[in-house]
Amino acid sequence: MKLAEFDAWVSAETARVESALESWVPADAPAGLGQAMRYGVLDGGKRVRPLLVLAAAQAVHGLPGAAMRAACAVELIHAYSLVHDDMPCMDNDVLRRGKPTVHVQFGQARAMLAGDAMQALAFEVLTPNDGAGNALPDMPCALQARLCALLARAAGHAGMAGGQAIDLASIGLPLGEQALRDMHHRKTGALLQASVMMGAACGTATRAQWAALADYGNALGLAFQVVDDILDVTQASATLGKTAGKDLDNNKPTYVTVLGLDAARRHANDLRDAAQAALARSELPDAAWLSLLADKVVERES
Amino acid sequence: MKLAEFDAWVSAETARVESALESWVPADAPAGLGQAMRYGVLDGGKRVRPLLVLAAAQAVHGLPGAAMRAACAVELIHAYSLVHDDMPCMDNDVLRRGKPTVHVQFGQARAMLAGDAMQALAFEVLTPNDGAGNALPDMPCALQARLCALLARAAGHAGMAGGQAIDLASIGLPLGEQALRDMHHRKTGALLQASVMMGAACGTATRAQWAALADYGNALGLAFQVVDDILDVTQASATLGKTAGKDLDNNKPTYVTVLGLDAARRHANDLRDAAQAALARSELPDAAWLSLLADKVVERES
Repeated sequence: MKLAEFDAWVSAETARVESALESWVPADAPAGLGQAMRYGVLDGGKRVRPLLVLAAAQAVHGLPGAAMRAACAVELIHAYSLVHDDMPCMDNDVLRRGKPTVHVQFGQARAMLAGDAMQALAFEVLTPNDGAGNALPDMPCALQARLCALLARAAGHAGMAGGQAIDLASIGLPLGEQALRDMHHRKTGALLQASVMMGAACGTATRAQWAALADYGNALGLAFQVVDDILDVTQASATLGKTAGKDLDNNKPTYVTVLGLDAARRHANDLRDAAQAALARSELPDAAWLSLLADKVVERES
Repeated sequence: MKLAEFDAWVSAETARVESALESWVPADAPAGLGQAMRYGVLDGGKRVRPLLVLAAAQAVHGLPGAAMRAACAVELIHAYSLVHDDMPCMDNDVLRRGKPTVHVQFGQARAMLAGDAMQALAFEVLTPNDGAGNALPDMPCALQARLCALLARAAGHAGMAGGQAIDLASIGLPLGEQALRDMHHRKTGALLQASVMMGAACGTATRAQWAALADYGNALGLAFQVVDDILDVTQASATLGKTAGKDLDNNKPTYVTVLGLDAARRHANDLRDAAQAALARSELPDAAWLSLLADKVVERES
């Protein structure tokens, strides 16, 4: 029963996220920029990060309008990072979400600009006002500032961009588990954890609850990457919607190359358990969706 | 007397901006990312945008700490746009501020990531808090949110990134003056105007003063670009610190190709007059530095 209810919630919220993104990513940005942005953001992806934002907001009875803006802002950052990551000077990938990548479809220059504009748009979505500089009722200034701070830090040198720099520099190097964890904590974990914290910021949490949610987000973020590494070697490109086996081809260290497949699977389960334990510690009564999202992240097949 | 005082103010504020950027752009970001970011931001450029922020803040008696953060955030956005703009898939330029461009020095992948991280850092600089989510005294939440909103809009699809998309798409096309103005209003004007508005947001201005400052910023932003187009054909690379004549080489429409050199010079002067008239309309008693900055933008030789 709970699981069916969860699946219905996931479907409904995914559709709401899609429709919100649809309304915020401009179709009429000049010179094909809007089309490239929409191609890179809309109609694809599992929307894991927006769902985490919305589930965390629900757990703290957060402002729904603010939570939806936070959800879309995080997804815009994630989507822009994929657009840039796929470019020839980075991973040089041609397939993403089952479609040609943005630079294949629109050219490299427009792909780079679309990614740049998507990052700016994320912060625009987080800071709505009435034109005279007054915040909207559902989005107080203090929350706007807090969400921008969390997102900027997770996206920047201390988070995602820093992790990608380590990723690039580590090609062909024998990374240990600690170095691998540090890389993934930044590259993938920071934005997933920020999703949880941004959702939590939309409502009220005690200091202890905030800390527990941070632990949950941290464990879930690492679990997500371990599973990504496993799927990269166990699934076909058609299932993933992106090029399978590319980490191996690119000679990149992964949890599978460092730990082996079986230990990586055990590690993912341990991290899921850690996430669930942190959630229990939070004593938030309405955290069921966060709990089921942790299961979903570990059990997914694409 | 006033002019000597202005020159001293410019020197002192430029040094303060340099030192603030130095403290905010991390030396220790991983895998060479910090070095690439610092190379792209520090120790170069005329710092026109930060000076506009600080002069506007002074005209409205704005919070000095907030104004310095706004000044550095704008410069980070400007600097990231140069890093991306110089890349091979865009303008493919090898010289900037008298040095090899970031991608020549650090490789394309790191240059792209450094630009991405610089954009995120701009919003991080605008949203400081005490770690527990409380704003700093000199930087109230409402101001943080307002500054993020102004900057995000100026940097994104409706502003700078949109203008660059038009720029790319217009290579070899016979643009009219109106289309050229629209492109430059976005590409260069939006961020220069936002610099003025962000400075003004740090203090108190009436609605009429706000509108007058917006007109000033708009005229100054266009004047800046007209002068850039003039300098591109009249100055040597050594003076500019970047490749001269490249718009012509790239077959890009400019104010010089559309209007001719003499008319472009008259147009720059007209825009300067418009900026000064708007400033007079604002009736702000302490707008002397804004007025002298408008002169400086039009009379500069690099």
